[in-house]
Amino acid sequence: MAVDAAEIYDGIRTLPIVSPHGHCDPAWFADDRKFANPAELLVIPDHYVFRMLYSQGVDLAQLGIGAPGEGADPREVFRLFAHHWDLFLGTPSRIWIEHVLHRTLGIEERLSAQTSDTIYDLIDALLMQPDHRPRALFDRFGIEVLATTDGALDPLTHHAAIAQSDWGGRVIPTFRPDSVLDPLHDGFMDNLAGLETQTGCDLGQFEGYLEALRQRRAFFAAHGATATDHAVEQIRTEWLPEPETLYQRVRAGTADAQEASAFYGHMLIEMAQMSVEDGLTMQIHAGSRRNTNMALKRQFGPDTGADMPIAVDWVRGLGPLLNRVGNTPGLRIILFTLDESTYARELAPMAGHWPALRIGPPWWFHDSPAGIARYFDRVVETAGYHNLAGFNDDTRAFLSIPARHDLWRRAVAEHLAQQCTRGAFGRDDAERLARLLAVDLARDVYGLAR
Amino acid sequence: MAVDAAEIYDGIRTLPIVSPHGHCDPAWFADDRKFANPAELLVIPDHYVFRMLYSQGVDLAQLGIGAPGEGADPREVFRLFAHHWDLFLGTPSRIWIEHVLHRTLGIEERLSAQTSDTIYDLIDALLMQPDHRPRALFDRFGIEVLATTDGALDPLTHHAAIAQSDWGGRVIPTFRPDSVLDPLHDGFMDNLAGLETQTGCDLGQFEGYLEALRQRRAFFAAHGATATDHAVEQIRTEWLPEPETLYQRVRAGTADAQEASAFYGHMLIEMAQMSVEDGLTMQIHAGSRRNTNMALKRQFGPDTGADMPIAVDWVRGLGPLLNRVGNTPGLRIILFTLDESTYARELAPMAGHWPALRIGPPWWFHDSPAGIARYFDRVVETAGYHNLAGFNDDTRAFLSIPARHDLWRRAVAEHLAQQCTRGAFGRDDAERLARLLAVDLARDVYGLAR
Amino acid sequence: MAVDAAEIYDGIRTLPIVSPHGHCDPAWFADDRKFANPAELLVIPDHYVFRMLYSQGVDLAQLGIGAPGEGADPREVFRLFAHHWDLFLGTPSRIWIEHVLHRTLGIEERLSAQTSDTIYDLIDALLMQPDHRPRALFDRFGIEVLATTDGALDPLTHHAAIAQSDWGGRVIPTFRPDSVLDPLHDGFMDNLAGLETQTGCDLGQFEGYLEALRQRRAFFAAHGATATDHAVEQIRTEWLPEPETLYQRVRAGTADAQEASAFYGHMLIEMAQMSVEDGLTMQIHAGSRRNTNMALKRQFGPDTGADMPIAVDWVRGLGPLLNRVGNTPGLRIILFTLDESTYARELAPMAGHWPALRIGPPWWFHDSPAGIARYFDRVVETAGYHNLAGFNDDTRAFLSIPARHDLWRRAVAEHLAQQCTRGAFGRDDAERLARLLAVDLARDVYGLAR
Repeated sequence: MAVDAAEIYDGIRTLPIVSPHGHCDPAWFADDRKFANPAELLVIPDHYVFRMLYSQGVDLAQLGIGAPGEGADPREVFRLFAHHWDLFLGTPSRIWIEHVLHRTLGIEERLSAQTSDTIYDLIDALLMQPDHRPRALFDRFGIEVLATTDGALDPLTHHAAIAQSDWGGRVIPTFRPDSVLDPLHDGFMDNLAGLETQTGCDLGQFEGYLEALRQRRAFFAAHGATATDHAVEQIRTEWLPEPETLYQRVRAGTADAQEASAFYGHMLIEMAQMSVEDGLTMQIHAGSRRNTNMALKRQFGPDTGADMPIAVDWVRGLGPLLNRVGNTPGLRIILFTLDESTYARELAPMAGHWPALRIGPPWWFHDSPAGIARYFDRVVETAGYHNLAGFNDDTRAFLSIPARHDLWRRAVAEHLAQQCTRGAFGRDDAERLARLLAVDLARDVYGLAR
Repeated sequence: MAVDAAEIYDGIRTLPIVSPHGHCDPAWFADDRKFANPAELLVIPDHYVFRMLYSQGVDLAQLGIGAPGEGADPREVFRLFAHHWDLFLGTPSRIWIEHVLHRTLGIEERLSAQTSDTIYDLIDALLMQPDHRPRALFDRFGIEVLATTDGALDPLTHHAAIAQSDWGGRVIPTFRPDSVLDPLHDGFMDNLAGLETQTGCDLGQFEGYLEALRQRRAFFAAHGATATDHAVEQIRTEWLPEPETLYQRVRAGTADAQEASAFYGHMLIEMAQMSVEDGLTMQIHAGSRRNTNMALKRQFGPDTGADMPIAVDWVRGLGPLLNRVGNTPGLRIILFTLDESTYARELAPMAGHWPALRIGPPWWFHDSPAGIARYFDRVVETAGYHNLAGFNDDTRAFLSIPARHDLWRRAVAEHLAQQCTRGAFGRDDAERLARLLAVDLARDVYGLAR
Repeated sequence: MAVDAAEIYDGIRTLPIVSPHGHCDPAWFADDRKFANPAELLVIPDHYVFRMLYSQGVDLAQLGIGAPGEGADPREVFRLFAHHWDLFLGTPSRIWIEHVLHRTLGIEERLSAQTSDTIYDLIDALLMQPDHRPRALFDRFGIEVLATTDGALDPLTHHAAIAQSDWGGRVIPTFRPDSVLDPLHDGFMDNLAGLETQTGCDLGQFEGYLEALRQRRAFFAAHGATATDHAVEQIRTEWLPEPETLYQRVRAGTADAQEASAFYGHMLIEMAQMSVEDGLTMQIHAGSRRNTNMALKRQFGPDTGADMPIAVDWVRGLGPLLNRVGNTPGLRIILFTLDESTYARELAPMAGHWPALRIGPPWWFHDSPAGIARYFDRVVETAGYHNLAGFNDDTRAFLSIPARHDLWRRAVAEHLAQQCTRGAFGRDDAERLARLLAVDLARDVYGLAR
């Protein structure tokens, strides 16, 4: 039966936005100050944008990135971006930014080198308006809940301020503890000291360390968190029957790289076990090798677009963790991959078996029309729809949130319409699944219904 | 030239079913007893079905699986399945089971929690009828030949009984010797003892061991077998110039894991060399890590849906074997992968060169509409059609055999119609290739024409 | 907006052919002798063709391959090929050869066992004509530039002869130095001796070795080369702070395999650094395991269709090289992969960041309609179009060059029309991108505009 994708899309187009994972700054909503200017809104924070410009020879300093970019004229930054607008043909960045300009901001002019200043001025004028402040936009976007991602030691003052304000927006933190779990993390020893100070626990013994982590999780949960998040390069988990010894070596700074990795692998399992206790959904983002461009890291700091995906072995890497907790009813662990070859080979078979597992939506380089199509093509036949986790926008570009959910919803509609055409199921099923994929799975898997 | 997939499908829809690889129980056809009940027919033996239910929190014991499931009420099992029917949206299981219910069994009612009992009763009543006994169904399905998969020590009494009966159905065994080849196999030492007893060969020397294997192969061939089968996790082959020494260590139980793997790698080559001698087609299924859920294995035994695919290196893994026998005219080795990234990268280039190699059809998680489309997309341009091996249903769910061949034939027609539309070839070619893929390749590659 | 692929194709169909990488023999154009016969033109040099025939049991000697094939009757070779024409259904070889027969040679008859002799005679008669000599065909094909691939020690006499002739065709060499860089290369020590003789440099010290390589690069550039090329099995690069020691071990023949690989990994970086100096574009073809069929290599020599792709790790393998030169403006390094799983996972993210990187077109087994579609599907969303390198025909089958560019242009048009239909961009953009992909990117990335 032929079903029109546009009709399925219409059924989910205006549903609320559920954003259970992303990187917005909670200060925006705590302070509700105006966004500074079009460049700081659309160009400078968007690593999709500046990595493409850099790949074609544009200097990051001229784009206002990092310390070398301080003092760059935002209008010039925006011009440089507009001048290279052609580079984005065929990329999701182009779709998102066109959505932002034309639909979110209502600008009719099309972006080009010629229109750069005009559009800059139009956006700048809009940002002066009260109805373009963070909270007003949040409300206008129909955001039901927005999760930020926050280090384990974050005092969550912005989240507290939002909660205590008279504004009704739901902005919740996510507990990201890698900086106090992974001995190879920058500043790990200082972070342990901070953890000790913050919690008052005695970190001299492994039990005290676990207790401190439990306290931080409880603190995050009390501020609304429903999930944790881990970013690992290679997925490796390992249950140490006697972790105290290795913990002491780690604390003494005498653990070698192999031991550090074993310790972190053990701690991932401890975190999963704490999730069994406290009900926080566990997210694992694996397969990104961070900051591969050393010169850029030295000059501009981390996160300058040089993180690169590598191949991942989920089956063997996650085995020890799953054999500790994977059969636990109610536990939710969401797996995100940048290695698409693992979708059909590993993640769909694993999520189609282990009760605890769900497959996260296409992440990072793959949250694009073709990327989403490949995702459905590869996971659904083995994992079905109910072992998926809905959508994440995963963005630090606040204005692009409606654009990203819209792209997802269109791709969902496209996929489901094709399924109907192939005879997999009928229109009623497709409409139900569309709502599931647009909002309900995310609400459920992240425990966001309240 | 636009060609209609439906027309190509019509040309192959009613061709006989050639099933050269699967896991039906030969006792069904030897004894021709009625199938016990709808749950034991459709739910309990189908790991696709129960793994999906388990992934969403359904207890395997309640599904009648393994020892803990003994005594489960089949009607309750069926209800549990029907209640979760939505989970199968988008999966091939749903297509197969709908085909079984509506076309094979002629039930009009659609499955749901509400219709569970009605449908259960309808199926149960049908199973009472003589025309729904195994042999009658086999005949009605138009099965030309059905191969089972049988351990090396199997006495093949059921196959013998079928051959001596007055029923004309062709049910042949397949020689699966891993349990007497792989020192890491459960019960390997006992199996060697059994092999010695069964053949009367002296297994004290490697030559006697080889001779015993030759005898078992001949015994299987005498019972109609045309093929062997191996299931390996990582493909590794290695020619030992002096296998006696390692054989003695293996027999003495003193070989370590590395030596055990080397021994098995050598034995795969010995098996290929025996295939050169006796003409049995060799099947290699690689890349499945078995029983990854240890708690389930302890409670429910093996094969509870926790086998997981892993990445495979065919080129280096199979090199030593191919350099012994790969250029042999007439030898047939069929490779099956769960790592789809190897189709275009390794298997199609290899099968497009080595005379002995054929690429098996999409296996296990990938014998689905999108899986089959990806398979053709990735193998045909390099390997053509004549280096493929046709279709396997590979099922232990007897009733689903027509459904699985039908799904394959529809997917074949879809693929060939697209090729015509793209201008790759014309309708005459497409119709010829359709018959090749539906039946002729399987007959040829498995040596089934008689 | 629906845009017709045929219209986009029409806009690029007759553009000149830019062929920046391939394996034609420059002697053809230096001498301008007639091609010997249809078999030597279409069958014997085409490893796509003879590997497929071999995979189905055809003897390579009967196909006129290698020393054992000397003296094979070309008419018989052509018959054998025509007899097996069905094997090529669904392969790009069939598309290319049909294009050659029907469009390039103007033969109306369709190839089959029955028409073999007729077609053979028609081709043979055409080859007698002056307008079917190499230079005339080169001109008729509209080839703007054709790059050959030449060993580091090649005296380039044919290229010099072409340049000094009154014929205006541009046939340029490409510097392929692996035979003097990789200690594991056949004849490496002899090649070093040849390099010393040819350049007069003192290879007793590492500096002299580098100087000799610089001289050879300059010699190639003086003969028109704009690029270098490397073929590596596993990509591995490594900067040795003190290469002299290892160089001395390599020269003394005492380096082990691991050291040889480290040395070659260092030399790849030296080559990249020389590209920074002299502006030659660097090509890296990685992931092909050469001559995996040892019996064929012994009997027929190398390159008999037994090279097999293996998995590649670009991110870690290329890291040391990129951290030396990857941020250099103006440097061009083109990466070619046979491991398609790296397109979305590694190559598109890398090319979308590093200024020096471009992604080469689908290579070898993947320069086919479905292969090209997968390529665009996987690279464009992350790398855009401007980080691609246009098209290579990469062929030693001269007559197939127009066919291969035509197949690419049709696939480009197909892809761009789909992008328009999906709403990614409009027809004007599509037409601009079509020209970019057909000719302009290749001209630019290989520095061919003059």
